Amino acid sequence: MGRIESRLKEMGVVLPRPPKPVAQYLPGVRVDNILYVSGTIGTTVDDNDNDILPFAGQVGDISLDDAYQSARLTAINHLSMIKAVIGDLDQIVRIVKMIGYINAAPGFKDAPQVLNGASDFWIELLGREKGAHGRAALYQNQLTSDAPIEIEMTVQVA
Amino acid sequence: MGRIESRLKEMGVVLPRPPKPVAQYLPGVRVDNILYVSGTIGTTVDDNDNDILPFAGQVGDISLDDAYQSARLTAINHLSMIKAVIGDLDQIVRIVKMIGYINAAPGFKDAPQVLNGASDFWIELLGREKGAHGRAALYQNQLTSDAPIEIEMTVQVA
Amino acid sequence: MGRIESRLKEMGVVLPRPPKPVAQYLPGVRVDNILYVSGTIGTTVDDNDNDILPFAGQVGDISLDDAYQSARLTAINHLSMIKAVIGDLDQIVRIVKMIGYINAAPGFKDAPQVLNGASDFWIELLGREKGAHGRAALYQNQLTSDAPIEIEMTVQVA
Repeated sequence: MGRIESRLKEMGVVLPRPPKPVAQYLPGVRVDNILYVSGTIGTTVDDNDNDILPFAGQVGDISLDDAYQSARLTAINHLSMIKAVIGDLDQIVRIVKMIGYINAAPGFKDAPQVLNGASDFWIELLGREKGAHGRAALYQNQLTSDAPIEIEMTVQVA
Repeated sequence: MGRIESRLKEMGVVLPRPPKPVAQYLPGVRVDNILYVSGTIGTTVDDNDNDILPFAGQVGDISLDDAYQSARLTAINHLSMIKAVIGDLDQIVRIVKMIGYINAAPGFKDAPQVLNGASDFWIELLGREKGAHGRAALYQNQLTSDAPIEIEMTVQVA
Repeated sequence: MGRIESRLKEMGVVLPRPPKPVAQYLPGVRVDNILYVSGTIGTTVDDNDNDILPFAGQVGDISLDDAYQSARLTAINHLSMIKAVIGDLDQIVRIVKMIGYINAAPGFKDAPQVLNGASDFWIELLGREKGAHGRAALYQNQLTSDAPIEIEMTVQVA
């Protein structure tokens, strides 16, 4: 078991299969040492191998805590998508940048705190030196499947 | 005539000039083997050399089919912008990533199906190995010129 | 004093410290010769070392001129963030791409003209060859701190 897979186990995280694509795209594309990872949302996989969305709705209607958890699940899906492209997770050199799109109810202005659910996960998994990253936290007034947050990201790989 | 220009002809696509910039920017910038291409929309060129927008309005008000066609026209404009920067289209190695911003009427949640209009074009033109890509499909409640979709993209070049 | 710092002085621009991060992220991450810079807004620093936002609100409620100035202040903050990551500003090779997110009142459709406030700054500072860039100008119906514009960008460095 690799270093990152061991750390996941310590954290109590079971890596799911990647979300099933809902349209015409790849989970990510690697060019040299940069992996461009597709946007995804915080689905999990149920007992019938279907993707379900434990937290749904606009943030403001759902709580900041639930949206934070949805961002964390999004990061876990990204990890699974990264594995699907590069195979060995220990080839992750560092997280470079993520853009988070928060499905915000009118008046909700704390997108950065929602996106922290993903940022904190990467730092918990990889440590600050490899896990801390650049980012932007933006606002949407709707998202596919009524997800509270969607994230796309860029990762440096070996 | 190059390989990609021949394939365009087979597909019945006539490559237009790039859209006229509406503000202070370049069609794209190349750094080494990555070409970062600006956002554009699905304009075409009329007989007086003006940019016109065959499909306009929020998706939901206009049909999914029309929006899909607008996404395809956007991809064709991107191809023209890529040519303006790199000259020879056969230098395209692969499509890396695109971010699609869909101008969505309230309640419209099928942004991924709209963006397929661009994704399908790239795969039809380049084949799956070079044309398939990472992406994210997002939502806007307005876009410049009332376009149904705007896309920005990243391309690997030789 | 470096070349770019001299040019800033000529332009009458005093480089502030970078904005204080409002959440879990870095100002930017460099991979080889590409610097991925985080999203930021047009804050300035007051006499008590607090970040304040001279222009706030949706564009359409505030004027295009004020929003343009906010975009310029955003670019100045980006310059400060770039300096925090790479140290010597003369290592900037060229501006590659920026994505601008404009906080737009219903019916406001001139996002490209707002983003020009940043694009014009980079060209004024670096000249057209190094300062002109690819970009996309998008729409938000809200932004953190009620900023009129947020920008994230990519820069080529030596």
